[in-house]
Amino acid sequence: MLEKMDLDISVPKDSYKNRIAKLTPRLAALQREMFAKGIPCIILFDGWDAAGKGKLINELILRFDPRRFRVFPMVEDAGTDMKHPFLWRYWQQIPQKGRISVFEKGWYLCGADRVDEIDSFEKTLSDSGCLILKFFLHISKKEQRKRMEAIDADPATTWRIRSHEWKKHDRYDKLLKEAEALLEKTDTNFAPWTLVAATDQRYATLLIMETVCNAFERALAARESAVPEAISPPPPLKQGSILRDIDMDKALDESTYDKRLKYFGGRLHELHFRTYEKRIPVLILFEGWDAAGKGGAIRRLVRQFDPRGYEVIPVSAPNDDERGHHYLWRFWRKIPCAGRLAVFDRSWYGRVLVERVEGFCTEAEWRRAYREINEFEEQLTRSGAVILKFWMHIDSEEQLRRFKDRESDPAKQWKMTSEDWRNRQKWAEYESAVDEMLIRTSTRCAPWTVVEANSKEYARIKVLETVTAAMDKALKER
Amino acid sequence: MLEKMDLDISVPKDSYKNRIAKLTPRLAALQREMFAKGIPCIILFDGWDAAGKGKLINELILRFDPRRFRVFPMVEDAGTDMKHPFLWRYWQQIPQKGRISVFEKGWYLCGADRVDEIDSFEKTLSDSGCLILKFFLHISKKEQRKRMEAIDADPATTWRIRSHEWKKHDRYDKLLKEAEALLEKTDTNFAPWTLVAATDQRYATLLIMETVCNAFERALAARESAVPEAISPPPPLKQGSILRDIDMDKALDESTYDKRLKYFGGRLHELHFRTYEKRIPVLILFEGWDAAGKGGAIRRLVRQFDPRGYEVIPVSAPNDDERGHHYLWRFWRKIPCAGRLAVFDRSWYGRVLVERVEGFCTEAEWRRAYREINEFEEQLTRSGAVILKFWMHIDSEEQLRRFKDRESDPAKQWKMTSEDWRNRQKWAEYESAVDEMLIRTSTRCAPWTVVEANSKEYARIKVLETVTAAMDKALKER
Repeated sequence: MLEKMDLDISVPKDSYKNRIAKLTPRLAALQREMFAKGIPCIILFDGWDAAGKGKLINELILRFDPRRFRVFPMVEDAGTDMKHPFLWRYWQQIPQKGRISVFEKGWYLCGADRVDEIDSFEKTLSDSGCLILKFFLHISKKEQRKRMEAIDADPATTWRIRSHEWKKHDRYDKLLKEAEALLEKTDTNFAPWTLVAATDQRYATLLIMETVCNAFERALAARESAVPEAISPPPPLKQGSILRDIDMDKALDESTYDKRLKYFGGRLHELHFRTYEKRIPVLILFEGWDAAGKGGAIRRLVRQFDPRGYEVIPVSAPNDDERGHHYLWRFWRKIPCAGRLAVFDRSWYGRVLVERVEGFCTEAEWRRAYREINEFEEQLTRSGAVILKFWMHIDSEEQLRRFKDRESDPAKQWKMTSEDWRNRQKWAEYESAVDEMLIRTSTRCAPWTVVEANSKEYARIKVLETVTAAMDKALKER
Repeated sequence: MLEKMDLDISVPKDSYKNRIAKLTPRLAALQREMFAKGIPCIILFDGWDAAGKGKLINELILRFDPRRFRVFPMVEDAGTDMKHPFLWRYWQQIPQKGRISVFEKGWYLCGADRVDEIDSFEKTLSDSGCLILKFFLHISKKEQRKRMEAIDADPATTWRIRSHEWKKHDRYDKLLKEAEALLEKTDTNFAPWTLVAATDQRYATLLIMETVCNAFERALAARESAVPEAISPPPPLKQGSILRDIDMDKALDESTYDKRLKYFGGRLHELHFRTYEKRIPVLILFEGWDAAGKGGAIRRLVRQFDPRGYEVIPVSAPNDDERGHHYLWRFWRKIPCAGRLAVFDRSWYGRVLVERVEGFCTEAEWRRAYREINEFEEQLTRSGAVILKFWMHIDSEEQLRRFKDRESDPAKQWKMTSEDWRNRQKWAEYESAVDEMLIRTSTRCAPWTVVEANSKEYARIKVLETVTAAMDKALKER
């Protein structure tokens, strides 16, 4: 695509002035409309060194309302970032509803190695309604040399051109082929590239502004026509109910409980130091029925750890900032960095549990979430994380017993809310949601463990045992 | 203080069990009460290596509701942090109303060099209602050696003791004197130290839990008694009105405007690259009457800059997360790191302008804010930042003309809200607030520039000229 481009197109000054005078208010009005409709937008700029990215980004953003966009420049050195999966930084920077994030290079910095993850990231955002526009600024090798010489000759900017930049310039032809291949692989209908001949700044400015205007208009029109999202018929579940087949009579006598608690406690204390030393991130999440004993199990678990190396992350309803973003955004912000351990008390599975059952998201949204969550967890394990997922299971009679117990004990009354009783009414609906979740998201890299929790002692030991085995295994594999 | 302590106190196991069984529910109930009353709390742990910080922090936090606290371990390496002022990281981590932040070492990592800033930080937080508790865990040199040998002998933890730790152990006596001095200097009534003999873990656990319980009770009782905060009578203003003495007839003809715009544009473009190269952070803030032309002046300014090196930060009403924190918290999160330039469209001066006039904070709060803001800006400049503050000034007739113009122009109508008319009603009150702000916060390190803005051209050039001079001066001084 790049090699065939006409790089000599230019626009005379008068015609430019004319067109820009029309485009500027049009763009401003469209941005206000995008804000009013709550459509988020990502605009990404890639291209050659000295292609004029800075100037062209400025020409665009100066027309935007500054309250509603942010620019994220490329950061090559990483520091804390490299302790996280590749996409971690970019997830933090995705726009809120109605806002614009402008990226310089962004996730294309990592090049062709990451095409799968790039595709998954862009598709996930696009599916949630985010508009994605990508511009590649193209100049010839000759033009690049001319510009680099000019930057080098200016005392204020000479520091920008080091030997590294000249070496890249020498490899122009090879880099051109690489860019070509990357553009082809990542040019999708949900996140298309626009190739911009950037020799003439006026031409490039107009092309970018017009492309943005047209894309805003199409996005607004699509929102207007409001065709309900198509739901692909889901493949049938592999089996009836996992939950109903569970043996709920499992229990432990007190002395066995004490002995095992002590044994696994010691093991976990040691394993935590060793995963810290080996810089393995560990992520343990708990879902389960109200009063199934998540809190107690978590306390028995983290008691063994050094508090400087773990964090318990309780998940409840999102705040207004979180509600304005993609549902995975708040979890990406909380994932543990290398060597740390995070315990999630509830998690991103809220999407396919409470949000599904209570109708807080559409059917298309929660159906899509299984794939999105599997990809999310795969990205985490690929970057080295150990993931453990526990479903704490009690039966309906046991829950009733515990609710009544809580209500009658003054020291526990604060734990009960009317919401607990409301949720209980929907037991059957939650049961099928849990079944489907367990089947669709039990992957090899992040399996579920169903914990029979009618006996608190049995449940706590099963959690400790499972975590011990997984940390042990991870250490042996590194 | 440390040398005189009895380090041999211990508590027998039975008595410990008894006392802990009473303290645990008491602490949990008090924490719920602190949450209900919205009182934030900081608990800081400092002390010797191997004094048992990890274990003791865990004993405390296991009794807390995990939804309402966070632990911030010490981070010695810094990465991005070091590009910011010393306190920047800790400001990010202050607790929201009703929450607890537990710090390991925290701002005491920097030692005695920063006593002034530590004092200002703790006083500012305490004044805003945050409870601050600091524990120093003390063990003898002999005990430290014994514990380090044990850690070293355990294969799981041997990596924790390197030659660095042994060297510190050898310097125990010198470090003891330094710790002693630091504790004395920072033991204030608003952020007192509790010295903990940490030889016996049971004794230390009980002492810490009891101290926290008692402090929670006192904080709750103080909130209950609700004595209105005493307002120290402010020193009289140095003069009548700054605003009324301003020459509002200053203007510029079009050709001079064009010429100067071009000249300063070129200079600023160059200066921005040079401050970036020298890693000087630049912070430019704009306050002013509605319709005084802040937006236009900002656009003329940032047009000169490379978008990868600046950010415009629009400030409006805080969101719910921001409202839950100290008012300076959201600004600390936005200050530019080394080499970057940030333009604030409105700022922390909202505290002494809109919040004062509209009664969003108490008189004691906005009166205190002058000192807090001066200290904040001093900390920024001390870490190398250049700060410029512009008050964009138009007179009341000019504002009326511009309001009417906006209302009659369809392309500008979206800019006007009923709030603009409401604010205009309070012109006189705002005028005295502005006067007082200009007098009390014009410091040598961060002076105000009042911009006569009845003529947009004059105003824009004055801004460009002032910024040019300040960046030029900063570069010459480094």
